[in-house]
Amino acid sequence: MSDATNAPAAPAPEQQQERPSVHARNPYAPHPGDYLSNVSNFQLIESTLREGEQFANAFFDTEKKIEIAKALDDFGVDYIELTSPAASEQSRKDCEAICKLGLKAKILTHIRCHMDDARLAVSTGVDGVDVVIGTSQFLRQYSHGKDMNYIAKSAVEVIEFVKSHGIEIRFSSEDSFRSDLVDLLNIYRTVDKIGVNRVGIADTVGCANPRQVFELVRTLRSVVSCDIECHFHDDTGCAIANAYTALEGGARLIDVSVLGIGERNGITPLGGLMARMIVADRDYVMSKYKIHKLRDLENLVAEAVHVNVPFNNPITGFCAFTHKAGIHAKAILANPSTYEILNPSDFGLTRYIHFANRLTGWNAIKSRVDQLNLQLSDDQCKDVTAKIKKLGDIRSLNIDDVDSIIRDFHAEVNTPLLRPLEDGSDAPAAKRTKTEDEAAPSA
Amino acid sequence: MSDATNAPAAPAPEQQQERPSVHARNPYAPHPGDYLSNVSNFQLIESTLREGEQFANAFFDTEKKIEIAKALDDFGVDYIELTSPAASEQSRKDCEAICKLGLKAKILTHIRCHMDDARLAVSTGVDGVDVVIGTSQFLRQYSHGKDMNYIAKSAVEVIEFVKSHGIEIRFSSEDSFRSDLVDLLNIYRTVDKIGVNRVGIADTVGCANPRQVFELVRTLRSVVSCDIECHFHDDTGCAIANAYTALEGGARLIDVSVLGIGERNGITPLGGLMARMIVADRDYVMSKYKIHKLRDLENLVAEAVHVNVPFNNPITGFCAFTHKAGIHAKAILANPSTYEILNPSDFGLTRYIHFANRLTGWNAIKSRVDQLNLQLSDDQCKDVTAKIKKLGDIRSLNIDDVDSIIRDFHAEVNTPLLRPLEDGSDAPAAKRTKTEDEAAPSA
Repeated sequence: MSDATNAPAAPAPEQQQERPSVHARNPYAPHPGDYLSNVSNFQLIESTLREGEQFANAFFDTEKKIEIAKALDDFGVDYIELTSPAASEQSRKDCEAICKLGLKAKILTHIRCHMDDARLAVSTGVDGVDVVIGTSQFLRQYSHGKDMNYIAKSAVEVIEFVKSHGIEIRFSSEDSFRSDLVDLLNIYRTVDKIGVNRVGIADTVGCANPRQVFELVRTLRSVVSCDIECHFHDDTGCAIANAYTALEGGARLIDVSVLGIGERNGITPLGGLMARMIVADRDYVMSKYKIHKLRDLENLVAEAVHVNVPFNNPITGFCAFTHKAGIHAKAILANPSTYEILNPSDFGLTRYIHFANRLTGWNAIKSRVDQLNLQLSDDQCKDVTAKIKKLGDIRSLNIDDVDSIIRDFHAEVNTPLLRPLEDGSDAPAAKRTKTEDEAAPSA
Repeated sequence: MSDATNAPAAPAPEQQQERPSVHARNPYAPHPGDYLSNVSNFQLIESTLREGEQFANAFFDTEKKIEIAKALDDFGVDYIELTSPAASEQSRKDCEAICKLGLKAKILTHIRCHMDDARLAVSTGVDGVDVVIGTSQFLRQYSHGKDMNYIAKSAVEVIEFVKSHGIEIRFSSEDSFRSDLVDLLNIYRTVDKIGVNRVGIADTVGCANPRQVFELVRTLRSVVSCDIECHFHDDTGCAIANAYTALEGGARLIDVSVLGIGERNGITPLGGLMARMIVADRDYVMSKYKIHKLRDLENLVAEAVHVNVPFNNPITGFCAFTHKAGIHAKAILANPSTYEILNPSDFGLTRYIHFANRLTGWNAIKSRVDQLNLQLSDDQCKDVTAKIKKLGDIRSLNIDDVDSIIRDFHAEVNTPLLRPLEDGSDAPAAKRTKTEDEAAPSA
């Protein structure tokens, strides 16, 4: 259990100093010259109610699905993707119910490349249909057993049927990164010519890495004129980076789910991608998405599927804005941008300086002394810091421990009896230990 | 709480079919022609006992540090990095104690670019010293307040001192991706000429993205002749991908910690990087690291810092090898490589087919019927699957629910009284519902 109360911490000062844009300072940051890039023009296909339903712990009843759909819509996602109406009778009814909510987000459902599914899908009232078929040797051999000609033929039939109903259609391959490149480009070009709204690349097994993603997206960008959507599983921990790099390569839409829930360990998480994108283009993200509602959204879904928000989750992990090493604390107190690329207040969150530990430094302790409304000189702060670090070497500290040490020290140095002379010195004997402050460097 | 018992699941069949190399099939995979790449020649600098100590919840006493150091050494990490001996008196003693363990891994400590720290470091008996100094405008202004000339002068003094003691020395900038490129290259070239063993690039605030990383590493690779080490924070979820891309660009060493623990939400996690690297070069990873001990190592550290292993952790997350959607289960039963890029048995783990839910398919249920040692025909399996999906539409199921339905169904169809005729048909009336099996596609 990640318990924030175990982490002695104190709110840091409120002042927010100016944060220069990463762009302006960094020759490697994306810039307008990246003509393929959609980093500043991306859309989200939110799939908590489709991919997320495939998460081991997920069971969403109708009421919960509607609650989640409304929260996603309020957050500002562009599309909400739902489980296929062919999956079960209730799945079909839920799809119809969510279509009737009148949300701003477009509603999609995700089906096999099959006319029965397509007919069912269009009957639910969705704004678009996401069609998928396995194109890798593995899936062609062990899943549906069909060849590329069959796949192309089915795709054309389904696409033309869906289009004839005047709604959006996406065609995606499955396991794209283990599919034959020529087969892939052939089928994408075919469906692009028929007029799909989007083609999809899917890293179904989570094997792709960023430079592969960039190359494949860039190649596909030169072959089709429609938008490119990408779907990344997180088996090897690259789902956020792959999504970002796909946008750099010219993809426009990214599939996400809240906390990344999905098959196995899931897909690109909404929150993690927001962290990534806000660093790239804060204005775009802030103009489209209510990122201060991220924490509530994550808590809603975490509760529904009986998991904790991971301790190390981007943005909302309990310590994402906790600064501990003395050297970090010192700099953060001077200017939060020194050790923060994200601004916690954007997310309705607060920064903490973790001062109750042996890695602490006198700047952090001085800040705590100020919070306690006590008066100690810099030298006195260094002395009491030495005492705190000494106890911190013996055991884990909490805020009360530190506050007691500070108060005792303050009482001691301010007791008139202890003052040897009225010589203007701030403090009595309290031997100045040679504390090397902020001695735990960090990179 | 992620509770695996909430996830009805059954072990999947044992057979492991051949897994063709990703390389052989994928034109975008890394290949020997990537002359810069160290993907097949990387080393790990394990920093749980340095960066990890800066995690909010971390307090390691001497005994725990030694237990973790031994476990890391047994796992096979190349280097173990320890907190600066200047951080506190006990930190110094612990550093000495770990140096005396006689581990195979080389022991490093991590200090500020300062002669006092350097003298203390070499006195502890470490095999090498990692020196760091902030080079970004932020850190130069708000942390140490020094200019690049001062930085270079201190660096040269410290490096020559450490080298004179015959141990390894690394010089790293801090916040490298927000530092001036020319300043960076200047100082790296200077320290390379003096003969450092490694130069370090650090994404201290977690702002870097993979293509930036590749460009900076590749540029630096052309400037220095020593090894390049990289350190990535995970604030925007790219720490694993950045590490991988750094290796592609010519970096050789990656800083990791168990579960990624460190300042804020931490750095590249050891386990996640193993997942990434095993997909790139399984033979290399298997030859160097005892990956089947990963779970024990993560549990050791998770317990020591009072966190849960995240539900979605690569490899060891409770559902990392759980397959749920019917179409996935079907293919996995035929060949696990269809929907798995990692082999759970490499990590001493087991695959699960999650069959107790409305997205299940008849292949998964048939597999469960076989496990229960019951005899049902394919059509009967489809019928009982329809019953299971119907209940799964109403509520969350567990294994007992499904087993009861299967056993009841089996009893029903095998009760002689119900058989209308001995006409060779397998089953009685039990109306064949038109279940579209595996109807929840997934990409």
